[in-house]
Amino acid sequence: MTKKASIGVTGLAVMGRNLARNLARHGHTVALHNRSEQRTRDLVEEFGSEGDFIPAYSAREFVDALERPRQVVVMVKAGAPTDAVIEEFAPLLEPGDVIVDAGNAHFADTRRREAALRERGLHFVGTGVSGGEEGALHGPSIMPGGSKESYESLGPLLEDISAKVDGTPCCAHIGPDGAGHFVKMVHNGIEYADMQLIAESFDLLRGALGYEPAQIAEVFRTWNTGRLGSYLIEITAEVLAHTDAATGRPFVDVVLDQAEQKGTGRWTVQIGLDLGVPITGIAEATFARSLSGHADLRAAANGLAGPSRSPLTGSDAERFADDVEQALYASKVVAYAQGFNQIQAGSAEYDWNIDLGSVASLWRGGCIIRAKFLDDVSAAFGAEPGLPTLLTSGDFRKAVEDAQDSWRSVVSTAVRLGIPTPGFSTALAYYDALRADRLPAALVQGQRDYFGAHTYRRVDTEGTFHTEWAAEGRPEHKS
Amino acid sequence: MTKKASIGVTGLAVMGRNLARNLARHGHTVALHNRSEQRTRDLVEEFGSEGDFIPAYSAREFVDALERPRQVVVMVKAGAPTDAVIEEFAPLLEPGDVIVDAGNAHFADTRRREAALRERGLHFVGTGVSGGEEGALHGPSIMPGGSKESYESLGPLLEDISAKVDGTPCCAHIGPDGAGHFVKMVHNGIEYADMQLIAESFDLLRGALGYEPAQIAEVFRTWNTGRLGSYLIEITAEVLAHTDAATGRPFVDVVLDQAEQKGTGRWTVQIGLDLGVPITGIAEATFARSLSGHADLRAAANGLAGPSRSPLTGSDAERFADDVEQALYASKVVAYAQGFNQIQAGSAEYDWNIDLGSVASLWRGGCIIRAKFLDDVSAAFGAEPGLPTLLTSGDFRKAVEDAQDSWRSVVSTAVRLGIPTPGFSTALAYYDALRADRLPAALVQGQRDYFGAHTYRRVDTEGTFHTEWAAEGRPEHKS
Repeated sequence: MTKKASIGVTGLAVMGRNLARNLARHGHTVALHNRSEQRTRDLVEEFGSEGDFIPAYSAREFVDALERPRQVVVMVKAGAPTDAVIEEFAPLLEPGDVIVDAGNAHFADTRRREAALRERGLHFVGTGVSGGEEGALHGPSIMPGGSKESYESLGPLLEDISAKVDGTPCCAHIGPDGAGHFVKMVHNGIEYADMQLIAESFDLLRGALGYEPAQIAEVFRTWNTGRLGSYLIEITAEVLAHTDAATGRPFVDVVLDQAEQKGTGRWTVQIGLDLGVPITGIAEATFARSLSGHADLRAAANGLAGPSRSPLTGSDAERFADDVEQALYASKVVAYAQGFNQIQAGSAEYDWNIDLGSVASLWRGGCIIRAKFLDDVSAAFGAEPGLPTLLTSGDFRKAVEDAQDSWRSVVSTAVRLGIPTPGFSTALAYYDALRADRLPAALVQGQRDYFGAHTYRRVDTEGTFHTEWAAEGRPEHKS
Repeated sequence: MTKKASIGVTGLAVMGRNLARNLARHGHTVALHNRSEQRTRDLVEEFGSEGDFIPAYSAREFVDALERPRQVVVMVKAGAPTDAVIEEFAPLLEPGDVIVDAGNAHFADTRRREAALRERGLHFVGTGVSGGEEGALHGPSIMPGGSKESYESLGPLLEDISAKVDGTPCCAHIGPDGAGHFVKMVHNGIEYADMQLIAESFDLLRGALGYEPAQIAEVFRTWNTGRLGSYLIEITAEVLAHTDAATGRPFVDVVLDQAEQKGTGRWTVQIGLDLGVPITGIAEATFARSLSGHADLRAAANGLAGPSRSPLTGSDAERFADDVEQALYASKVVAYAQGFNQIQAGSAEYDWNIDLGSVASLWRGGCIIRAKFLDDVSAAFGAEPGLPTLLTSGDFRKAVEDAQDSWRSVVSTAVRLGIPTPGFSTALAYYDALRADRLPAALVQGQRDYFGAHTYRRVDTEGTFHTEWAAEGRPEHKS
């Protein structure tokens, strides 16, 4: 009897190829399939020595090469191509087999596919995979959804190839159906927020202190040794320290300042709106990218007057970089607090029962937002799974409260100097709104009742009320 | 031969009833129909003397009562009920007849319905109607989409019943298919932003100056005589001046401070994200409402430390109310600039060819955001239809530039005092980002190239580049 593969990968562009190699390097026999045969042959030719591969040149041959339950990893473009590949393989599979979508699908598509395949007796696992091409090869952070049963066979393989932190795999079963892709989506949203906050810190250090990129790289290197230590801070220092070979200028100064995006930040905000979760940090970061890309609009607005302030000097200047570190840390805590609240809300909406501590733990390695910080986040949710917000958890609370004077000073300085800090500003506004005894939302309710008879509730009585505004009479008890 | 009706209304809850009465009061014979007959009978009994009504007690009878081309206004709940009513009437109608959906449909649904009914030879007009129950009866702002041909028969009737400003009807053909409902959606989004900015102004006057609601009502009354003069400012003064009869306390203090929403703000932001238009003012306003409603979260965060600052005194205090007026005006200009950019983007995306000056003009009366201010907006787009942003149009530019010192001072004060102003802050950040020579988006592009090989463009050369970060080598020319 021929040896069979414990898993197969179809779709052998760079992500699929690297996942297949990672699996083979960990001792798993991997069946290979691609729409065009050449990619399959190339993989075996170039990397065949890394492990056991079984190349297959038809869907039937591929399926026949797999042990039961068959595990088919689909690594093709999100959307119609994914549906097409699923439809190609599903008829060849048998009850109990598992199809894994490791692409960047929208979780709603994953829910739809999971339900359809469950009807046909198949497991469908939508899994988030973060870490890019390098991560796929050397150890990504992996966020699989789908049934518990599917994780019994699939989980050990995914844990094998995932990143490890302190010996713990950066992979865990997230929850049923779309839970994995949902969590990956929020991961990317948080990544947008993180990057925007770092970008604002850079802009502030430059605009308020007149530092050159190379000096700012040093500031980030120092920060990277402390509580902000993370992959994004590390690579920011690298990018800022880099000199453009062609011009001799700082690299960041020759890059066109129009940020691009692939859509997961947008999804996160849209779903946050549907779930009623205020994720203002991710929203501002997403909008900041789209604003930067509106070249014509920016050109038209470029001459608008700003303040004529000079960079900081003296003791203000000396303190400023430390203040920015505090502001960045506090704003980051807010962004994560909001993102985790979104995961809580999604979990409640779809009955996913997601373990937030486990999510924070598996983001500690392999993915773009990997950071020391996530140890503490994981501990916070581990200690109190129903934590209403990260902001009230012991160490975070203290850190943010201690940071607030600096945070306020930085935002105030940015506002006076005309440096845009939408991320810092919205994080601080969120902090102040959340802790407020009273919000002016009461006035909004009054306005709504005035113009649309939308009714209001009272602080002193149960029920719903409407005031006859024209008559200025007694409020009418509505229910 | 029996007299026929020039238009019919099906769905006689308060909005439909008031639209029917408004039509009849303007001399139009109106056919009436409702799923349950009693509402039809009630309308004729109570208001039959206001004009010519033809009650109908079946769909066939209703359709037969109408002149050709028949014009059927559907005024039922958005979603499935609207589809059900359309499916009830469409088979009874003939080519050239017009179905009008005057409810709050999502413009994408309107596009779908319009396309389907066009196939069947029928005109479908999705129209925004703003002004609530009172507006429907006395003169709303009306935003009809659909074919030009449908507007030839329908337009004169809608213009008759609309609000008038300086003799001009607050109704005009917006553009094909979903254009009317799209513009109504953005109207509502702007309404959210307007209300949030007013709420923040109230909160600032109270928090920073210690004013009572009745004093703040006087401030709003004064503002209402100036450039901020508008329906929302007017009713804000009324709400703030109102004393709760049951307790003798200021009304706004007995209202539960949890703002509710019906979803059009959320739609606006979601569509803004799809179109890549930064509409941060509407987003922050929408999120501020949802934040206010998270009672448990707010309770948990209530003890978080804030600054221990006192209200302003002396000359700072004297100037502050004027500064808030400036900040409110400037932030309002930003919110409208963003909203009109969204309409421009929707118009371009769907080939609607929307006349922005006409939109601003028809919002001058009847609707919730009616304001003097819109005269100037209409004039700005009338003078320059392709205006890239309201912020660069003559008078607005000058006003915002003149306001900026006050605006910065107000946001800075809010930040120092711990008063949340997400709306003011994001508007100012938008202003500063839009006018910036360089944005830190360049750093974001550098990060993206570093971790995902997403490439970047350069300021000095065409094309797309990637740097081999591991090797720190020369950038590779990608395309």
